[in-house]
Amino acid sequence: MRKIYLEDTPLQDAQREFVEKITFDRKIERVRTTDALGRVTAEPVYAKVSMPNYHASAMDGVAVLAVKTHGADEKNPVRLQQGVDYAIVDTGDPIPSGFDAVIMIEHIHQVDEHTIEILEPVAPWQHIRPIGEDVVVGEMIVPAHHALRAVDLGALLAGGNLEVPVLRRPKVAIIPTGTELIEPSETVHNGEIIEFNGTVFASYLKEWGAEPIYFGIVKDEYAVIKQKVLEAARIADIVILNAGSSAGTEDYTVHVIGELGQVFTHGVATRPGKPSITGVVEGTPVIGVPGYPVSAYLSLEWFARPLVYHYYGLIEPKRAALPVKLGRRVVSDVGADDFVRMTIGYIHGAYVANPLTRAAGVTMSMVRADGMLRIPAGHMGYEQGEVVELELYRPKEQIDRTTVITGSHDLSVDVLHTLLRKEHPDRFLVSSHVGSMSGILAIQKGEAHAAGIHLFDEESGTYNVPYIEKHLKGHDVVLIQLVYREQGWILPKGNPLGIRCMEDLVKPHVTYINRQRGAGTRLLFDYLLKKEGLSREAVYGYDREAINHLSIAAAVAGGAADVGLGIYSAAQAMGLDFIPVAEERYDLLMTKRFYDSPEGQMLVHVIQSESFKTEMEALGGYSCRESGQIVFEN
Amino acid sequence: MRKIYLEDTPLQDAQREFVEKITFDRKIERVRTTDALGRVTAEPVYAKVSMPNYHASAMDGVAVLAVKTHGADEKNPVRLQQGVDYAIVDTGDPIPSGFDAVIMIEHIHQVDEHTIEILEPVAPWQHIRPIGEDVVVGEMIVPAHHALRAVDLGALLAGGNLEVPVLRRPKVAIIPTGTELIEPSETVHNGEIIEFNGTVFASYLKEWGAEPIYFGIVKDEYAVIKQKVLEAARIADIVILNAGSSAGTEDYTVHVIGELGQVFTHGVATRPGKPSITGVVEGTPVIGVPGYPVSAYLSLEWFARPLVYHYYGLIEPKRAALPVKLGRRVVSDVGADDFVRMTIGYIHGAYVANPLTRAAGVTMSMVRADGMLRIPAGHMGYEQGEVVELELYRPKEQIDRTTVITGSHDLSVDVLHTLLRKEHPDRFLVSSHVGSMSGILAIQKGEAHAAGIHLFDEESGTYNVPYIEKHLKGHDVVLIQLVYREQGWILPKGNPLGIRCMEDLVKPHVTYINRQRGAGTRLLFDYLLKKEGLSREAVYGYDREAINHLSIAAAVAGGAADVGLGIYSAAQAMGLDFIPVAEERYDLLMTKRFYDSPEGQMLVHVIQSESFKTEMEALGGYSCRESGQIVFEN
Repeated sequence: MRKIYLEDTPLQDAQREFVEKITFDRKIERVRTTDALGRVTAEPVYAKVSMPNYHASAMDGVAVLAVKTHGADEKNPVRLQQGVDYAIVDTGDPIPSGFDAVIMIEHIHQVDEHTIEILEPVAPWQHIRPIGEDVVVGEMIVPAHHALRAVDLGALLAGGNLEVPVLRRPKVAIIPTGTELIEPSETVHNGEIIEFNGTVFASYLKEWGAEPIYFGIVKDEYAVIKQKVLEAARIADIVILNAGSSAGTEDYTVHVIGELGQVFTHGVATRPGKPSITGVVEGTPVIGVPGYPVSAYLSLEWFARPLVYHYYGLIEPKRAALPVKLGRRVVSDVGADDFVRMTIGYIHGAYVANPLTRAAGVTMSMVRADGMLRIPAGHMGYEQGEVVELELYRPKEQIDRTTVITGSHDLSVDVLHTLLRKEHPDRFLVSSHVGSMSGILAIQKGEAHAAGIHLFDEESGTYNVPYIEKHLKGHDVVLIQLVYREQGWILPKGNPLGIRCMEDLVKPHVTYINRQRGAGTRLLFDYLLKKEGLSREAVYGYDREAINHLSIAAAVAGGAADVGLGIYSAAQAMGLDFIPVAEERYDLLMTKRFYDSPEGQMLVHVIQSESFKTEMEALGGYSCRESGQIVFEN
Repeated sequence: MRKIYLEDTPLQDAQREFVEKITFDRKIERVRTTDALGRVTAEPVYAKVSMPNYHASAMDGVAVLAVKTHGADEKNPVRLQQGVDYAIVDTGDPIPSGFDAVIMIEHIHQVDEHTIEILEPVAPWQHIRPIGEDVVVGEMIVPAHHALRAVDLGALLAGGNLEVPVLRRPKVAIIPTGTELIEPSETVHNGEIIEFNGTVFASYLKEWGAEPIYFGIVKDEYAVIKQKVLEAARIADIVILNAGSSAGTEDYTVHVIGELGQVFTHGVATRPGKPSITGVVEGTPVIGVPGYPVSAYLSLEWFARPLVYHYYGLIEPKRAALPVKLGRRVVSDVGADDFVRMTIGYIHGAYVANPLTRAAGVTMSMVRADGMLRIPAGHMGYEQGEVVELELYRPKEQIDRTTVITGSHDLSVDVLHTLLRKEHPDRFLVSSHVGSMSGILAIQKGEAHAAGIHLFDEESGTYNVPYIEKHLKGHDVVLIQLVYREQGWILPKGNPLGIRCMEDLVKPHVTYINRQRGAGTRLLFDYLLKKEGLSREAVYGYDREAINHLSIAAAVAGGAADVGLGIYSAAQAMGLDFIPVAEERYDLLMTKRFYDSPEGQMLVHVIQSESFKTEMEALGGYSCRESGQIVFEN
C-alpha cells in the first residue's frame, strides 16, 4: 500500500461538500395509509372525498327548515309536524332533504308524539356540519417531503386516501471489517473483539428512517473488501465501511474507494473522529468510519445522518441545548473541533457539567453521557465555572430528576440505584467513580448530591469524619452509614504465588495493581505499607492505576497483575481468590440540602430498608448492621 | 338508559387519580439485543465479559518490556531483538506474554530486519488498552426501566449480553363504536363516516411504545359493546373505547364501564375533550374518548399516554415550548382548561401565533397546528400582542424556515408550495385561507410574509393597488402578479335550474352560497349585484358563508346550494358545470423585507419558472401571461 496521510479538512466543509456532490435516485412506493407512520411523502396528497361527505347534524335534535321558524317567540310558538316540518336526527346523521337547520333536543317542547313547539327562530345552517367542514375534495392534505405523523394519517383516511405515495426508505449497507472481529458472544478469546458497531449503526439508521443492510464481518483483505464495497454500492443508497479508515498499512478503505470511485475527504479536523472518509462509488456515497466506537458513532452522525435527511428532502432535527456550568476546566487542541462527552448534574438549582473520559474506545462513556460539548477549532477550551452550551443526549426532564452520586465505587450504589428506581420510577440516579477524595471535593464544589467515601485517618484511627472536618468547613453536610465491607487481597484462583501478607508483595516477580490517587483503597494500602515499614518503590506496579474494584479484579483475572487490594464481591464476580485484610466503613456523604429534600429522604428510606440489607449481605463481604444511621452532621 | 350528566373534574385531578388507581401486571420477555432498540429494560443488565477481554495494543508498533528501555537516550540507544525483546503488534492485537508496553511504529529505528533501536524509555502500560477499559465484567451497563438507545445496544453487546430482559409492550385495545362508521374507503355514501380515529390512536400508541390491538368497528348496541369491552379488558393492558362517551341516549360507554367495573371520572373541565371517561374493568384501565377527532386525540394524550409511561416506569417526555406573540385576541371560558390549536409564523425575527378553528371535528386543524395554547381554567384568555407559551407540534427549526402565505385561497399557492419544496427541500411553506382583506391586515400586523389578494376596486376599475394604498400606508411592500383566473358560476352538472345570468339568482327556489366577508370573490359578487341593481336580500343564501372555492363547489355538489361564485378548477375538481363571469387578477403581496430576502427571491424564481406556468395553465381557467412581474412597489 502506498503510504498516505490524513487531511485536516474542517468538519463543516467536508459535510457540505459531501451532501452537495451526492444526487440520490429516489424511488417511490405506495403504502397503506394505516402503515405509513413516519414515512415521508413523495408527492402532495389531495383529498378524494370530503369529510363529512354530506351535511351532518352536529347535535342530537330535530332537523327543520329555518324559514318555518321565523316569527316564533314565547307568545307565538310555532308548531311543527313530524315528517312534514321536522325530522328527528342524532349527531352525525345526514340532514334529510328539505331541511336546513337543526334544533337541539333541549330546546324543543314536545306537544304530542308527532308535534313540537318552537319558541324562537333559528338561522339556516344552525348546528349543521357542512360537507367538507373537516376535509374538502381536492384540498391538499399534506405536501411532498412530509414525514407523516399520527394526525396526518387520520386526515388522509378522512380524505379517502387508503394508500399514500412515499419515498422508499434509503438502503444503507453496513460493512464491518476486521480480522479480529467476532459476532456477539458470551465467550471471547484472546485477540477477539465483539462486533457491535454494526448494531449501533443499524439502530441509529432506523431512527433516522433508513433501512440498514448488515453485510456481516469481512476480513481485513483488500480484494474481499473491494468486492464487498462494489456489491454494496450497487444495491444500497449509502455504504458504511467500518474501520480501516485511517492511514496505516492495513487501512484499506481509502484505497478501495479511490480505486472503485472517488475520495472526497480523508481525515477531518475533529477529535475524536479524525480518520473519517467520504467518497463515491458508482454514484453511491461511501463513508469510511473509524473503528473506535465513539469516533465511529460521531462520524456516522456527521456524514450518514445528513445524507439520509437529504435523501428525504427533510432537514435534520437538532438536539435540545442546555447552558451548564463547568465543574472542571476542559482543555482543547487548537487545530480541531473537539467533541467532549459530559455528565450533567442538576444540583440545588444549577446545572453542573463534567467531562467523561475522552478515550475513543469507551462505549460506556456514550451510554453515560448526558450531553456533548463541542469546542470549535481555534478555541483552547473553557475554564472551571464558565457557562457553556451542551447538546443534550438525555432529556432535560430526566436530568432534572436525577440524583448524582460520586466518590468511591461500591456495589451498594448500584443496589441503591435499582431499589430507588423500583420504588420511584420517576426518579433517576447516576453514579460516577472518581475516588473518595474527589467525592469530597465534588460536594465542596456543588457538583453532586452525595458521595460514597471510605477514608481512613491514621491519626485518629477513624473513617471519614476527620476528612470532612478538614475539607468541608462551612458546608452543611450529613454523613450516613451505608455499609461495612471487607477489603482484601484479590488473587488468581488457587493463589499460585502463595501471597499471604504484606511482605509477599515486595518479592521479585510479584506485580501489584494499585488504585488511583485519592481512592480510599489506595490510602488503605499506603497505611498498610507504612505500618509494615515497606517503601512504595519496593512494590512493582505501585504506579499502575485502576479506577475501580472490578478493574483491579479484571487485571488479576487477565494476568496483568498478580495481586491487588479490593472488595470481596469484585473478586467473587471474576472467580478469584480473596484474603480479607480489613473491614472498613463505607459511608454516604450528603449535602444537608439534599438530605432534607424529598429525594434525599427517598434515598435514606431505601438505605434503611430490609431489601437493601438483604441484597447487600447476599453479595458477601458486606455488613449492613448500621446502614442508614447518621454518623455525623454539621 | 338512565339520564346522567357530565362532571367537570379538573383535568389534572382526573389524570392523577387514574394513574394512582391503576397497578399493572408487567410481563417480562427476553429479546435479542440487536432487536432491542426502544425497548425498556425490566432489570439492570450487567456485563458478562470485559471489553477488551485482553490487554490490547492501542497503536500499530512493537510490544516491549518497559524495564528494558530504561536509560535509553539519543547517546545511549537501546537495541532490542525481535522475538526476545520485542514483538510486532497492530492496533487491537493482544500484548504477547512477557511484554507490558507498546512503542509506536513512528518512534522506532529499524537497525536490521530483526533489530530495532529505542532512543527514549517508555513507561509500563504505555499505549495498551487494559482489559475492561470500555466495559468490565460485573459492571452495570444499564439500569432497570431504561429505554434502550443505539449506544446502549453497543455496550450491551460489548459486555456479552446477546439478549436483554425487557418489559413486554403494553397491549392497548382500540374499540371504535358507531353505526355510521365504515372502514376507510374511496366511496362514501350519505350517512357514512370513515373510521380513521383507530389508525391515529394506533399510531400514537406505537410512538409511545405500546402495542395497539384494533378491534374493528362495533355497532352502537349496548350488549355488543359490553361484550367487546369485557373481551378487551381480559386480553389487553389498557382499553380505549371511541365515542359514546358523552351523556346522550346512545352514549353507552359510561354505563358499560359502570356495569362491568368502576367509573372514576365522567367529564373533565376541558374544551375540547370534556366527554372523557376513565374507569376500570376487571383490573384493566378503560378510557372512553369522545368521537370528534380533535377531542379524541387530546383525550388519548391526557389519559392513555401517562398510563403507557406508568406501565414502563418512565416519565413522559415533554413537548418543547416556545414563547410567541399573539396575532389575535384569544378568549376562553372560565370554567375549563382551553386547548387552542395555533399556527406560528416566524416573521422578520418574531414568532407570531394565531388560533386555528376551535371546532372539535376538524382533523385538518391538528395537521396544520404548529403549537397548542393551553389556557388554564379561571383564565379569560389573552389579548392581541400578549406573549404566551405554546407547546410545539412542529420542530422549531422547521417553523424558522417556513414562509407564511395568507389571504385569499387559490390553487396557485399549493402549486407554489410543491415546486418550492421540490427545489428547496429545506424550506417550508404554510398557507392559510382568510380572504384577501384579512391578508392585507396580516401584512399590516406583521403576521405573514406574503398574502394572495384579488380585490376589485369599483371606482378605479383596477385590482389590489387601491386597497394597498389605503391600508398599507408607510408599509414597505411589493406586489407580484401571480395568475389571472376566471371566476364564474359553479353549478350542478347539467345546470338543472338553467342559471345563466345575475337575474336567475334571485328567482324563487334558487339557493346561493356566498363567500365570507372580506373575500375578494364576495366583493366581486357585491359589485355584480350592484351593477345589475339587485339587492342582497333578494338572494336566498347570501348570508351562508363558505371559506374557500372548494367549499363552494362542495356545497353545490352536495345539493346544499344551487349556485355559487368561484374558480373554474374548483368546479372541475368536483365534476360541476361552470359559466365564466369575469377574469380577475390574483396577485401576491409581499413585505419588502421578505421580497429582498433569499427566501423571497426563491419564491419569485418559482413564480417566474416555466414549471409554474405549465402546471397552472394545465389546471384550466388560469393564465400566467404576467406571472412574476412587479405590479406595485412602495
